[in-house]
Amino acid sequence: MSVLTDVATTIHDLRREVCVLHEQLTRYQLVVWTAGNVSARVPGHALMVIKPSGVSYDDLTPENMVVCDLEGRVVDGDLAPSSDTQAQAYVYREMPHVGGVVHTHSTYATAWAARGEPVPCVLTMCADEFGGEIPVGPFAVIGDDSIGRGIVETLRGSRSPAVLMRNHGVFSVGPSARAAVKAAVMAEDVARTVHVARQLGEPLPIEPPVVDALFDRYQNVYGQAPQQTHQTQQEGTTP
Amino acid sequence: MSVLTDVATTIHDLRREVCVLHEQLTRYQLVVWTAGNVSARVPGHALMVIKPSGVSYDDLTPENMVVCDLEGRVVDGDLAPSSDTQAQAYVYREMPHVGGVVHTHSTYATAWAARGEPVPCVLTMCADEFGGEIPVGPFAVIGDDSIGRGIVETLRGSRSPAVLMRNHGVFSVGPSARAAVKAAVMAEDVARTVHVARQLGEPLPIEPPVVDALFDRYQNVYGQAPQQTHQTQQEGTTP
Amino acid sequence: MSVLTDVATTIHDLRREVCVLHEQLTRYQLVVWTAGNVSARVPGHALMVIKPSGVSYDDLTPENMVVCDLEGRVVDGDLAPSSDTQAQAYVYREMPHVGGVVHTHSTYATAWAARGEPVPCVLTMCADEFGGEIPVGPFAVIGDDSIGRGIVETLRGSRSPAVLMRNHGVFSVGPSARAAVKAAVMAEDVARTVHVARQLGEPLPIEPPVVDALFDRYQNVYGQAPQQTHQTQQEGTTP
Amino acid sequence: MSVLTDVATTIHDLRREVCVLHEQLTRYQLVVWTAGNVSARVPGHALMVIKPSGVSYDDLTPENMVVCDLEGRVVDGDLAPSSDTQAQAYVYREMPHVGGVVHTHSTYATAWAARGEPVPCVLTMCADEFGGEIPVGPFAVIGDDSIGRGIVETLRGSRSPAVLMRNHGVFSVGPSARAAVKAAVMAEDVARTVHVARQLGEPLPIEPPVVDALFDRYQNVYGQAPQQTHQTQQEGTTP
Repeated sequence: MSVLTDVATTIHDLRREVCVLHEQLTRYQLVVWTAGNVSARVPGHALMVIKPSGVSYDDLTPENMVVCDLEGRVVDGDLAPSSDTQAQAYVYREMPHVGGVVHTHSTYATAWAARGEPVPCVLTMCADEFGGEIPVGPFAVIGDDSIGRGIVETLRGSRSPAVLMRNHGVFSVGPSARAAVKAAVMAEDVARTVHVARQLGEPLPIEPPVVDALFDRYQNVYGQAPQQTHQTQQEGTTP
Repeated sequence: MSVLTDVATTIHDLRREVCVLHEQLTRYQLVVWTAGNVSARVPGHALMVIKPSGVSYDDLTPENMVVCDLEGRVVDGDLAPSSDTQAQAYVYREMPHVGGVVHTHSTYATAWAARGEPVPCVLTMCADEFGGEIPVGPFAVIGDDSIGRGIVETLRGSRSPAVLMRNHGVFSVGPSARAAVKAAVMAEDVARTVHVARQLGEPLPIEPPVVDALFDRYQNVYGQAPQQTHQTQQEGTTP
Repeated sequence: MSVLTDVATTIHDLRREVCVLHEQLTRYQLVVWTAGNVSARVPGHALMVIKPSGVSYDDLTPENMVVCDLEGRVVDGDLAPSSDTQAQAYVYREMPHVGGVVHTHSTYATAWAARGEPVPCVLTMCADEFGGEIPVGPFAVIGDDSIGRGIVETLRGSRSPAVLMRNHGVFSVGPSARAAVKAAVMAEDVARTVHVARQLGEPLPIEPPVVDALFDRYQNVYGQAPQQTHQTQQEGTTP
Repeated sequence: MSVLTDVATTIHDLRREVCVLHEQLTRYQLVVWTAGNVSARVPGHALMVIKPSGVSYDDLTPENMVVCDLEGRVVDGDLAPSSDTQAQAYVYREMPHVGGVVHTHSTYATAWAARGEPVPCVLTMCADEFGGEIPVGPFAVIGDDSIGRGIVETLRGSRSPAVLMRNHGVFSVGPSARAAVKAAVMAEDVARTVHVARQLGEPLPIEPPVVDALFDRYQNVYGQAPQQTHQTQQEGTTP
């Protein structure tokens, strides 16, 4: 197969993957109406596949996903891309290991973001997935690179694949779009459980070396070994 | 087509649209049992299409939607219209740009209404959709124009498409019934997230000029341009 | 048709109605596992139809519903009846206008019951359906008439069709099983909204004469007139 | 049938049962993504059937369940077993009456666990199922027998079939996998209701002798007698 055919096939598959992954956002009630999106990098190319803007989750199809370059310009697609395209393109430009980005306004994570408070790491699940607290990024308005820059600067100072953007919502990243969706799901679950715990008192701390050990084990031992069939999910590593 | 045929076709389509939009109220759990409804203005005519009173969402059909004039009198339909018909008819009479009205008792929005407190604008999503706080209307009882008057007077003093009627519930409006449903969904989502944020402290404020900029951009830039296909939703503008 | 055939037909229909109504308990998440049930009086006979004990909602069929007399003895059915049969039989014996009884441990209503606090009437929906606060009944243990007596004594001192039994859960009644289910759904919805409202302050009161007026109107005007087709629900009156 | 054929049939049936029981974890929202699992002992053999690690609930099949010995070594199956296999194997080794084990991070139960607080027994449903408070086990990290030992030591000091492991989540046991799933469902329901009750004040206590009487009755009288058909669930006794 020529290189061009190869890209076309990859994009064809990613359109489908990105489309289908939005079902996880609605399943876990991370989004209402059209307020959240998934994107994926086209590996080896300065391209990304992203949800069209303002289209209902029920109406998403592989065909109406939008292909953009990493400046956010439409390369292929009939519809305008998500209004978060600029921010996500910035992340792909600056973080070459990122293969997928997700944005939601999920309730509990966004509530921490509204107060500008990170979610403290008081659950083993938080240590596993986030390697510490879920950090807060700056207040930034849509329209230029402010949001993307805020995401990247915050994630660079943390092991967490998710950032709570102040007064706004959650952005999560991963080696694949699926891993970024997982991080968005886990961020809301952890944010909710810690919120509920804090409502009636103070959660007990987990010592930092224990957090380190849990994070290390989960990233390297959990799940199936990479040679396993595609039926298993390698959440922490590129498939 | 004659003008009469034209109205008949419009009403036929609106019966279906109003019927189907109720699925969004149950999907986002804004209503229980029969406690909420959607209506649409028949454009260019002093008529509206509304849910019948006390009928389960599972039993709604385009055929059992009720057509009323803007005094709330039944023009076409076998069933009695929603008990909120008077209030919604008042809104259509007084606010000519309104094409749809929705009423719910969604939990979090109604909780703010029970305390008579507006939802403060501390989320970018709230600035986008409501252009500021979600305001509170007066206590008003059913049976005359009090509810309709309370809705209209409150909305006129605000950019918000939703009003929290004291000790009662939410009324939302929009250029179309679909846009009014969206406002009802967003009102509950914002009311819930800000409630959760406030449970553990004070949300950080967003400066009023930033609220203005976000509102302006969302109303004018978000989503697909009007010439796009019907597959996209123009939430902020009449289709 | 002979009287005997008539009873058989009525019981046949009620088995189906009682079975199907359990779907509303799961739909509105009022119950988990097997912890809640619906019963219906066989009109004109000292008989009731009730859920079998400890059977999953997924496994309910009209055939496995149990027919008991009003002392709680099985008259027809292969399975043991709900462990709440004694309590519900007591209600049918003492309150001849009751045609249906529902029991749940729905979260928010049961939380008020755990504190022994009635839900104050601060929502128009509460005035409509309950005519005032949702009252609390005594602590009573299963095994004799204590629960039934507690339900009846509390409901007699109130206009409410639902009672919060202390440290236990909710019992609701109605002219039909469907009306009792509606009261159970509304009790949880009101209990939840008022709980949420109280978390951040004090809900504003509704004056008692206004509560009276709302209750009177809702019981007599809401919904479709009795001569309407069966497609409509007459919640407040026997069909 | 030979003994060997008999084991094969039992394992075949348990693979299916364990697979299908995971649907209850998602139905009651006790788990997100892949974070929770069910296992069953193979009666009369030092074997257990458990979920594979990191596999989505949507992708579970009877065939991809993993058979392990009670040291946690894979005996049959293509995939790596749950990372909780060591802990659950320890429970089966030490508690011969246990036929099933479930692990979740369900929100409300885990919130109590994050504070290291047992759920007080202030609901009749808690007395019925747990015979007292739901106890808290020690903080323990994955990788050796610490979690298993913490579970067993805590459960031995209690009548409860569920334990809240500090900063981690819930483990529940039962005579069968189905009974352990029920205990996980009830633990979350009770943890949630008591949490909600405590948000607005103190729940009223239930006297210990009353707790004893309720527990005794529920374990011995509730549900269908053992000779009933398989359509009924004997939650409290081995089928």
